[in-house]
Amino acid sequence: MNVIIDLCVVPIGVGLSVSKYVAACHKIIKDAGLESELHAYGTNIEGNWDAVFDVVKKCHEKIHDMGAPRITTTIKAGTRTDRDQTMADKVASVKAKL
Amino acid sequence: MNVIIDLCVVPIGVGLSVSKYVAACHKIIKDAGLESELHAYGTNIEGNWDAVFDVVKKCHEKIHDMGAPRITTTIKAGTRTDRDQTMADKVASVKAKL
Amino acid sequence: MNVIIDLCVVPIGVGLSVSKYVAACHKIIKDAGLESELHAYGTNIEGNWDAVFDVVKKCHEKIHDMGAPRITTTIKAGTRTDRDQTMADKVASVKAKL
Amino acid sequence: MNVIIDLCVVPIGVGLSVSKYVAACHKIIKDAGLESELHAYGTNIEGNWDAVFDVVKKCHEKIHDMGAPRITTTIKAGTRTDRDQTMADKVASVKAKL
Repeated sequence: MNVIIDLCVVPIGVGLSVSKYVAACHKIIKDAGLESELHAYGTNIEGNWDAVFDVVKKCHEKIHDMGAPRITTTIKAGTRTDRDQTMADKVASVKAKL
Repeated sequence: MNVIIDLCVVPIGVGLSVSKYVAACHKIIKDAGLESELHAYGTNIEGNWDAVFDVVKKCHEKIHDMGAPRITTTIKAGTRTDRDQTMADKVASVKAKL
Repeated sequence: MNVIIDLCVVPIGVGLSVSKYVAACHKIIKDAGLESELHAYGTNIEGNWDAVFDVVKKCHEKIHDMGAPRITTTIKAGTRTDRDQTMADKVASVKAKL
Repeated sequence: MNVIIDLCVVPIGVGLSVSKYVAACHKIIKDAGLESELHAYGTNIEGNWDAVFDVVKKCHEKIHDMGAPRITTTIKAGTRTDRDQTMADKVASVKAKL
């Protein structure tokens, strides 16, 4: 089962800047070989369900290791069985109607 | 690593009522032996990270099996390393300040 | 237009405990005369769209006033035109199928 | 008070394709003169709080007018008082650390 997620990880208790934690997550995503797209309020990732959610777990573990004692994350996750659809397909589908 | 999540699973393409799908997820949560609390816009679940996210995956698989070709899910997930905190603790902590 | 929302407000840069900020929001909701239900990962609120989102804005303003320089909030918002449905109806609808 | 949001509007009860509804929202955002960025799981919008949330409300009204009897929306909303930060700043801040 493939999934597209939007991942937004927020470390708490480490001050105002969260970009270094987001960058660390980006490296984890890349190391997993998954397609991803950074945007201004999260990162979209696509791939096999287990691989994608393994990355989410590794991001939590890494951010705790970096010193954040608390993390709150928001995830949107989409699956479909009627057809394959990539992140690029989703954007193209909307843009074709603009 | 323990986690508390808020899970809101939305089947698409099966009409307006989603309660039977939510009820099916509830059974999956119970079968996994995890603590959970249903509320008006989702279900809170607490437990070991792998057990909790295994339930999320099984919910997607079950809802597809029930006939929904597309699902979009919103998850909030919280972890902390400074101390243990249950769902009941979180609610009590706020209520003590009201 | 009525709306049911799930509101989760996270102050950033003020340490690990967020319960006093959630309690302050709870007071704003009560002062607005809106129905609400606290749960372990947010607060559900129902009412007229403008009244509900005015409360969300006031929560951000209040939490900044309390000293949090940054806030990230997650909201789920549901509207329907086919029939009236309260938060209690939604929970009852699932429980009837358990 | 400025805000950056991530908006994901999901019409329910109108079949599997939601892109025409997203496109209609895009037009509302443009007509409001707000900066926005479409991504694979939502649209980021930045601007004055009232202007941004007025757009969210108009999206719900429009999608109901287009025939969707039920809508569930997920919003992330970020405000900060320590400094101005645009959507482009947020992405650049992460990319500088990659």
